[in-house]
Amino acid sequence: MKALVYRGPGFKTLEQRPTPILQAPDDAIVKVTKTTICGTDLHILKGDVPSCVPGRVLGHEGVGVVQAVGAACTNFKPGDRVLISCITSCGKCDYCRRGMYSHCRTGGWILGNTIDGTQAEYVRIPHADTSLYRLPDGADEEALVMLSDILPTGFECGVLNGKVENPGVTLAIVGAGPIGLATLLTAQFFSPAKIIMIDLDDNRLQVAKKLGASETINSAKEDAQARVMALTDGLGADAVVEAVGIPATFELCQDLVAPGGTIANVGVHGKKVDLHLERLWAHNISITTRLVDTATTNILLKAVASRKLNPTVLITHRFTLDAILDAYDTFGRAAETKALKVIISPDT
Amino acid sequence: MKALVYRGPGFKTLEQRPTPILQAPDDAIVKVTKTTICGTDLHILKGDVPSCVPGRVLGHEGVGVVQAVGAACTNFKPGDRVLISCITSCGKCDYCRRGMYSHCRTGGWILGNTIDGTQAEYVRIPHADTSLYRLPDGADEEALVMLSDILPTGFECGVLNGKVENPGVTLAIVGAGPIGLATLLTAQFFSPAKIIMIDLDDNRLQVAKKLGASETINSAKEDAQARVMALTDGLGADAVVEAVGIPATFELCQDLVAPGGTIANVGVHGKKVDLHLERLWAHNISITTRLVDTATTNILLKAVASRKLNPTVLITHRFTLDAILDAYDTFGRAAETKALKVIISPDT
Amino acid sequence: MKALVYRGPGFKTLEQRPTPILQAPDDAIVKVTKTTICGTDLHILKGDVPSCVPGRVLGHEGVGVVQAVGAACTNFKPGDRVLISCITSCGKCDYCRRGMYSHCRTGGWILGNTIDGTQAEYVRIPHADTSLYRLPDGADEEALVMLSDILPTGFECGVLNGKVENPGVTLAIVGAGPIGLATLLTAQFFSPAKIIMIDLDDNRLQVAKKLGASETINSAKEDAQARVMALTDGLGADAVVEAVGIPATFELCQDLVAPGGTIANVGVHGKKVDLHLERLWAHNISITTRLVDTATTNILLKAVASRKLNPTVLITHRFTLDAILDAYDTFGRAAETKALKVIISPDT
Amino acid sequence: MKALVYRGPGFKTLEQRPTPILQAPDDAIVKVTKTTICGTDLHILKGDVPSCVPGRVLGHEGVGVVQAVGAACTNFKPGDRVLISCITSCGKCDYCRRGMYSHCRTGGWILGNTIDGTQAEYVRIPHADTSLYRLPDGADEEALVMLSDILPTGFECGVLNGKVENPGVTLAIVGAGPIGLATLLTAQFFSPAKIIMIDLDDNRLQVAKKLGASETINSAKEDAQARVMALTDGLGADAVVEAVGIPATFELCQDLVAPGGTIANVGVHGKKVDLHLERLWAHNISITTRLVDTATTNILLKAVASRKLNPTVLITHRFTLDAILDAYDTFGRAAETKALKVIISPDT
Repeated sequence: MKALVYRGPGFKTLEQRPTPILQAPDDAIVKVTKTTICGTDLHILKGDVPSCVPGRVLGHEGVGVVQAVGAACTNFKPGDRVLISCITSCGKCDYCRRGMYSHCRTGGWILGNTIDGTQAEYVRIPHADTSLYRLPDGADEEALVMLSDILPTGFECGVLNGKVENPGVTLAIVGAGPIGLATLLTAQFFSPAKIIMIDLDDNRLQVAKKLGASETINSAKEDAQARVMALTDGLGADAVVEAVGIPATFELCQDLVAPGGTIANVGVHGKKVDLHLERLWAHNISITTRLVDTATTNILLKAVASRKLNPTVLITHRFTLDAILDAYDTFGRAAETKALKVIISPDT
Repeated sequence: MKALVYRGPGFKTLEQRPTPILQAPDDAIVKVTKTTICGTDLHILKGDVPSCVPGRVLGHEGVGVVQAVGAACTNFKPGDRVLISCITSCGKCDYCRRGMYSHCRTGGWILGNTIDGTQAEYVRIPHADTSLYRLPDGADEEALVMLSDILPTGFECGVLNGKVENPGVTLAIVGAGPIGLATLLTAQFFSPAKIIMIDLDDNRLQVAKKLGASETINSAKEDAQARVMALTDGLGADAVVEAVGIPATFELCQDLVAPGGTIANVGVHGKKVDLHLERLWAHNISITTRLVDTATTNILLKAVASRKLNPTVLITHRFTLDAILDAYDTFGRAAETKALKVIISPDT
Repeated sequence: MKALVYRGPGFKTLEQRPTPILQAPDDAIVKVTKTTICGTDLHILKGDVPSCVPGRVLGHEGVGVVQAVGAACTNFKPGDRVLISCITSCGKCDYCRRGMYSHCRTGGWILGNTIDGTQAEYVRIPHADTSLYRLPDGADEEALVMLSDILPTGFECGVLNGKVENPGVTLAIVGAGPIGLATLLTAQFFSPAKIIMIDLDDNRLQVAKKLGASETINSAKEDAQARVMALTDGLGADAVVEAVGIPATFELCQDLVAPGGTIANVGVHGKKVDLHLERLWAHNISITTRLVDTATTNILLKAVASRKLNPTVLITHRFTLDAILDAYDTFGRAAETKALKVIISPDT
Repeated sequence: MKALVYRGPGFKTLEQRPTPILQAPDDAIVKVTKTTICGTDLHILKGDVPSCVPGRVLGHEGVGVVQAVGAACTNFKPGDRVLISCITSCGKCDYCRRGMYSHCRTGGWILGNTIDGTQAEYVRIPHADTSLYRLPDGADEEALVMLSDILPTGFECGVLNGKVENPGVTLAIVGAGPIGLATLLTAQFFSPAKIIMIDLDDNRLQVAKKLGASETINSAKEDAQARVMALTDGLGADAVVEAVGIPATFELCQDLVAPGGTIANVGVHGKKVDLHLERLWAHNISITTRLVDTATTNILLKAVASRKLNPTVLITHRFTLDAILDAYDTFGRAAETKALKVIISPDT
């Protein structure tokens, strides 16, 4: 089969690889029909993710069709159309029993990291019964590939951790990239009084406005803290989502959060940050971190089915698997290409 | 009346001051029968609290007897024995209606800070109906003065924020001073599987052991992280309470917390700290900060009444108001004097 | 002043009464500019509410203008436009400090019940600082009179108690009268997958459909349980709101609730009901009851301001105070007149 | 092997049966070393549980040693000493993923009900990885057999549903049989201000007093409601646990519950009960029902290991499997024999 293989920092190739086969009784083999590229894939290619070694097939998102299942797999059978979660969960370990699938003892984020991933024609999914989700009849596959990672990440790490469910809260999202926009979309399951998007890129802010932001701030051009304070009677935002992953944006979040509020970190950080406990110790705030558990995948599937959520608004480009190097190029130059999420169709 | 007055960084005097009088319809005047000294009073004396200006009577803890009440005060009458909360709460503003009394629009921590405090023969208490608590008949006044600040602080900022109510959690408390010990005492309302106390002072660790710590670690003598990991099957502690307030101890907390756990900050910090998001971003943790709201004062009063909590174990020394400078000296040299909380009795 | 006075079961008169005056330091006198009639007023007139004695001015809903305030009232001044909560709260008692204002020791539901109410030109409001809410500039008074009782009731007793905030839940509302419709409106702050309205009146079901119900069932014409099961893959509804108050509808709720679900009672019941513990004991459900606390009034005011909620859709008729007997007549024959909420304007 | 077999209403026999064998890849075969009898077994014998048909081996509690495991079973291997949960959980269905194992699509309470149970020398456990728990080294098997059903039932259905974790609550437990006493024991993980036990049997009340009840009431001899009101300043109990399962005791619970409180039903009911919504509709209470999920088994295992819980206090009698008919007789005449839990040792 064809597969996109990581060949060490800076290198990736589209190669022929053997089709994966069942290795354990709870495995499934899935033919990938749609996949996409994540910011994390770019981190791997920079050499930032040491657990991912050269030779690995990349990709942890996708939808497809079950080809084969092990003897212990009872939820799925060949021919079933499925969503592949970016998080593999055994359902049996202490973390899985607590719903913290991200830390599964024999799973977690392993696809396209410590085992071969989804940017290929076929992929082996361990613990299939608890790591795959059946697609509803008539589902739009492109929409649902957004549910592998980006939408549960925005929803769980940003919206739920930020306690956006309390009606009337003010929400500030720092970063209007795909993950910030996923947070914006899923925040609208609830009724925040205001959703303020902050970014340096006017195009992304325009997209945010179209997708439901009540206010946008280009922090390169205006004082984000001053604007947020003006918009919140001087209190700050109840929920602040960090959706970038660098010290400067985490710093900004600390300037925006209201007493009693929450900073929900979503960004993947490569460096330590400053935490201003000298003023925040008495501010009654929470700071949360989370690797997505994909514990809300079924909720998101229902939300798409009942038209509360339209993930296709995040899709800007489409490629075949043969053109996946172009897809990486387009996704990697997002500021120029205005790419958000790119769809890759291995089967065409 | 006699009162302990802050006279600028490094200076305090025991002076004669006019007895306070009612200023607003919801004020009360309380004759102080017991008060104590808090670590925060020492911070003021170092000049670290700019809101507290020279000329201020210090002290925000105490019990006493109501002398006079304003026309709008309906919960209390002269002669009532009362506990004075360190937090003044109007009961009417947005923060008070959310139970976040620490941020009351016309209250919060003002006693011995922005208005005259309790280290005096008499004190004026604004918003008396919602800032005083009736003492149960036969109550031990020395015990209850511990409920003005230190016990609600340990309980709210440490135990409740740390989610210690989940049975079977492992709790690590960094700092075995009065506030760390108050956390230890109130943690035992619940059933943590282990309570690990960490400090540099063997005397305080011995006290902690006597008061219910299951394990103690002198972090000057052994590797605290290694010990905690050994005690927790390599997972770390579910709840980690920072009860010191310096960068080094907050750093240690980050080394101790288990995936899915909480760092509950109690310490008063004077400097920013490092937050290691480069490894914690995927650790699914929460960090909380809180200025005590004293929202649990009634719960603590009940716990003392039903003998679930004995606050007197924190009391090491007793002084008269005339000897309050000695009391400060003893409290200020705690390592030598082994002082925890000192009781000052203005009325003897 | 003119006032609508209860004169014993079956009797009410529009009378001249002395204008109320301040009685306590935390009282306010409010000139009523809009009021309305509640189903509870009809209950009083039937003689079902013994705490309400003949001679009482009825009404517990309204907006108006502050005329005078007592010396302890600091949040309001004459001239302020205010919303009157149906629940009077002192802010100082144990129940108020827990947010359970409905059970305030010196308040709760007293207006138009144990003290004179709002169906008059003027009304005295005890504990004004914590029982009135400032109207935003430019607010629509008719819209906001719906926030005195019916919208917080639907939201608190129905939506919040029913845990509708969990995205993807299925909600069934039994009863499409004003209170059921208020539940329907506020349920849409969240994202239930389905909202199923059940009633006997096709007109009300049509209104429900227009206001956002995804499904409607006339339980006189079809088997409500069978329809709900068909709509929920045989599971039942996660949240079932009882918005009628009779044994038959509570019985139906028990047939509709899914395992793990909640029956949130909103209806005012005059008789005991059957509870089928012989099958529900193992069904892992909750049943909740609540007299509205109006703890969410500020949230609802914000929701109206940010256009997440339009209460005027509940208003069907308008009357002057002089015509209030006609208003009662229209409201009392709702099936014929299609009345939902009627607005009464004392000042025209 | 020997097994106790249900032979229709009123009949049970100790018979020879074939030793069970593996049927599915996630099965395990367990040699039972300790089992016990549950009140539910008596219900089955009365013919009250139609799902349990004649020919069934009874029993859903026990500890033992794994003899064989299927190919998909990865958590256990032959020789492991295990606790058998009364609830079988697949870990993969929608209910299991929500932690509601009691409603597992292919499990729930099936042992000794729809499949053969533990009152035998060997038992087949489906979904073994998620239905068995490893015994800690040196564990007391008799103590841990109490963790199969009775202790998680008291803890989950009574203590957790009753929100006893809030310090200072008053708890009333109606019924001092084994399940009421299990509630009493696990309530002490938290710090209720008072625990009031109510029963008709003085012996059981004496046991309750010894096990930590602060007050006991023999409701045959005194007015339970009057006593509870006297003990709670006229408010009633915050948490009321129904641990009997008949209309009269559920009625009593409604007389005892405080405004804002909870009635947590634990009892297995055979008939409908009266619910007094005509007074409770405005009482702001919750009523909960629950078939135990055994979601807290690991917590309880830790609590036993850290000596926060001593389950052996519930054990009154011991029998061999050969004498199981005597064990049933003793357990069935509990009022006379003072039996609480009886231990049956198949292997001696």
